Amino acid sequence: MSAPKWRITVLKLDHRPERDKRLTTHVGLTARAFGASEFWSAGLKDTNIMDTIQQVSNQWGKKDFIVLTGVKWKTRLRQWKEENGEVIHLTMYGLHVDDVIDDIRRSQQPKLVVVGGPKVPNQIYQLADYNVAVGHQPHSEVAALSIFLDRLFEGQMLRWEFPDAVLRIQATSHGKRIIEAEEKKRAI
Amino acid sequence: MSAPKWRITVLKLDHRPERDKRLTTHVGLTARAFGASEFWSAGLKDTNIMDTIQQVSNQWGKKDFIVLTGVKWKTRLRQWKEENGEVIHLTMYGLHVDDVIDDIRRSQQPKLVVVGGPKVPNQIYQLADYNVAVGHQPHSEVAALSIFLDRLFEGQMLRWEFPDAVLRIQATSHGKRIIEAEEKKRAI
Repeated sequence: MSAPKWRITVLKLDHRPERDKRLTTHVGLTARAFGASEFWSAGLKDTNIMDTIQQVSNQWGKKDFIVLTGVKWKTRLRQWKEENGEVIHLTMYGLHVDDVIDDIRRSQQPKLVVVGGPKVPNQIYQLADYNVAVGHQPHSEVAALSIFLDRLFEGQMLRWEFPDAVLRIQATSHGKRIIEAEEKKRAI
Repeated sequence: MSAPKWRITVLKLDHRPERDKRLTTHVGLTARAFGASEFWSAGLKDTNIMDTIQQVSNQWGKKDFIVLTGVKWKTRLRQWKEENGEVIHLTMYGLHVDDVIDDIRRSQQPKLVVVGGPKVPNQIYQLADYNVAVGHQPHSEVAALSIFLDRLFEGQMLRWEFPDAVLRIQATSHGKRIIEAEEKKRAI
């Protein structure tokens, strides 16, 4: 068990419940597993996404992981910068992640990691302290987020365990082994 | 520019066009950008996905990237193993990626990387040469695939360029810069 060095919030722009349900959930779950402490989804409110991620946290730990949907990104971004937080926007147009990650790692400020939908407002590029490209090819905000956080935490977050987990996995070569913390299960 | 050391095919199980459209597309685009040469989607046929990924390859390069949908996974897996290919199944239940990646990297065999939907048949766990966990937390097949390929290629694939690209990005700190290869565009 180890704790993240930075306070990370992930903001996903432009969520539409019907079209984006699974993708936004994957961004949120990736944020949780890769070291963020909050996940904000802009666009429309969506309680399904909050419920799904909360259920995962209840079972696999990190119950204090915060999920907000229907967030107003402009207000939040302005507020974040006023409070001296850093804004990092992941975009294929930005500077290559491997060229800037050391700079980003050096600062202790809380980091708001913004990932986009298909059309990101120009303002975001200007407001961001860093526009970071996880390679310059089109792929996925989930891939970009996971690689960025993996680089930031130098691969360590894949070893973290959450002390409040009810379920844990015992690594196995061919099958599934889940260990249940009975006393914790009863306490829920 | 550099070429991948291994021939990689990515197989996504269980695609349903309505529910999974964006997610399956993201898996395919991540496969393309992170060093695979083919992407197969099992479940239902879906020409939209093929078209979307093909369009990306036409613009950003790697026109020989193969996309198949409606693939029969059982037949394909059996065939792959008969032809001495390796099967690597990404699952949170498997062995930690950082414990097995050196072994996987040592072999020169073509690699079929299988990523799941919510319910993966038990057979896959048995057929796989490696069940690999990108951490033991639930997150996303897109995140798992990107981290696995990033580890396999030791982070180098984010620097690859595709010589047949019509469009290229010039990295920039605050904005978008696209360079167009005019002569290639005219040739399409």
